[in-house]
Amino acid sequence: MQRYKIIIEYDGSGYVGWQKQDNGISIQESLEESIKSLTSETVQVFGAGRTDAGVHALGQVAHFDLKKKCTTREIQEGLNQYLKPRLIAIIDAKVVSKDFHARFSAKKRIYSYTIVNRRSPLTIDKNKAWIIYKKLDMKLISSAAKFFIGKNDLTSFRAVSCQARSPIKTIDDINITREDDKILFKVTAKSFLQSQVRIMVGTLANVGEGKIKPEEILSIIEDKDRSKAGPTAPAEGLFLKDIIY
Amino acid sequence: MQRYKIIIEYDGSGYVGWQKQDNGISIQESLEESIKSLTSETVQVFGAGRTDAGVHALGQVAHFDLKKKCTTREIQEGLNQYLKPRLIAIIDAKVVSKDFHARFSAKKRIYSYTIVNRRSPLTIDKNKAWIIYKKLDMKLISSAAKFFIGKNDLTSFRAVSCQARSPIKTIDDINITREDDKILFKVTAKSFLQSQVRIMVGTLANVGEGKIKPEEILSIIEDKDRSKAGPTAPAEGLFLKDIIY
Repeated sequence: MQRYKIIIEYDGSGYVGWQKQDNGISIQESLEESIKSLTSETVQVFGAGRTDAGVHALGQVAHFDLKKKCTTREIQEGLNQYLKPRLIAIIDAKVVSKDFHARFSAKKRIYSYTIVNRRSPLTIDKNKAWIIYKKLDMKLISSAAKFFIGKNDLTSFRAVSCQARSPIKTIDDINITREDDKILFKVTAKSFLQSQVRIMVGTLANVGEGKIKPEEILSIIEDKDRSKAGPTAPAEGLFLKDIIY
Repeated sequence: MQRYKIIIEYDGSGYVGWQKQDNGISIQESLEESIKSLTSETVQVFGAGRTDAGVHALGQVAHFDLKKKCTTREIQEGLNQYLKPRLIAIIDAKVVSKDFHARFSAKKRIYSYTIVNRRSPLTIDKNKAWIIYKKLDMKLISSAAKFFIGKNDLTSFRAVSCQARSPIKTIDDINITREDDKILFKVTAKSFLQSQVRIMVGTLANVGEGKIKPEEILSIIEDKDRSKAGPTAPAEGLFLKDIIY
């Protein structure tokens, strides 16, 4: 058996998310089907991050084992052939040792989130950003974001359906930049709770609109109550950007 | 009569281009219909750049005259309402004097073109970039691009169907940057011939693949023969970025 690590880019629009589900096509299933077509082997593909429906990836990582020995070029180009016309592409493939696990070996995950803040609807960025018409105050957003850094119980910032055993997560970095009407959030942590980035961004958007004061982030965290945080920002603005091992 | 200047962003996929045509829906027609719906006036909309089918715009500029006096906010928000669900948006509107003409008053036009240069198909950037699998040499491309700067007879770099009276154009600047697998071209000139940027990019891509030497750009220009230049790069990588007045 040979273990392969692949890096995957996808447009999550129209998919039920990374993980196999009964109600539609998932990225995981699409990959498993392509591997089956290429190698005739039925494998399970393990992903680093379980992106939700509509969430995109620039650098999702996954691994799987094959009996057949393939070159990494055969894997990459063969899977890309079978994945067409789906908007899922293998952008790199490597042979890795058996102790590599896409999910458990990951040291850092980096997500990005895009808000377009202007008074007109999206065109070019349709399905790739969250449009907010009301002017957001970047100073307020930046000073609020600082309160997320470090180790916290993020019960207020997890989906009600989140199944993680512990709500305690450490956020290493939040980088927020604005260029013209585009606001880009980059959040780095070892791991995340379900919908965590989207609830954080939804809450920071409320801060930017003046509905929540920056320092209130502290009490929202302390309350450990999902209803105290802001809305869950739409899936289409979120990108799984990079996984560091 | 009041003259309005609007800035328009659009995803050109699925449109026959800026200009009204019999074979499909154009951006110009979409705008004229929306103005009719909003104001009950039948107007002609004059655009700064006649983008081809599939070409996008981040900052197309147009003007039109209305008998009815509207605020610029009514124009922008009203038209955006009627333009839905088309991926065309008015991102700014101003009242201008009668001597302003979107096309003839333009001092500079800036187009950008995106190539994604890697061995896997497009996902997120589908319909927004040209995918080239073969590795392109950026040094060759950059040294070739310099030969375009200045005033030249660009007969070799115009579509056969181009109706411009003179093939002589002055290119002010070509800026080329690469970030990971994304190559971004930015070309600035007072005006362009039909398909000029796309033929220039197609030719520079040939240079990057080693099929054309950088200094051959000079002889291709001198030959004044479309067949000597490279292919016309696909429309979907091209964006009308900005118009300067």
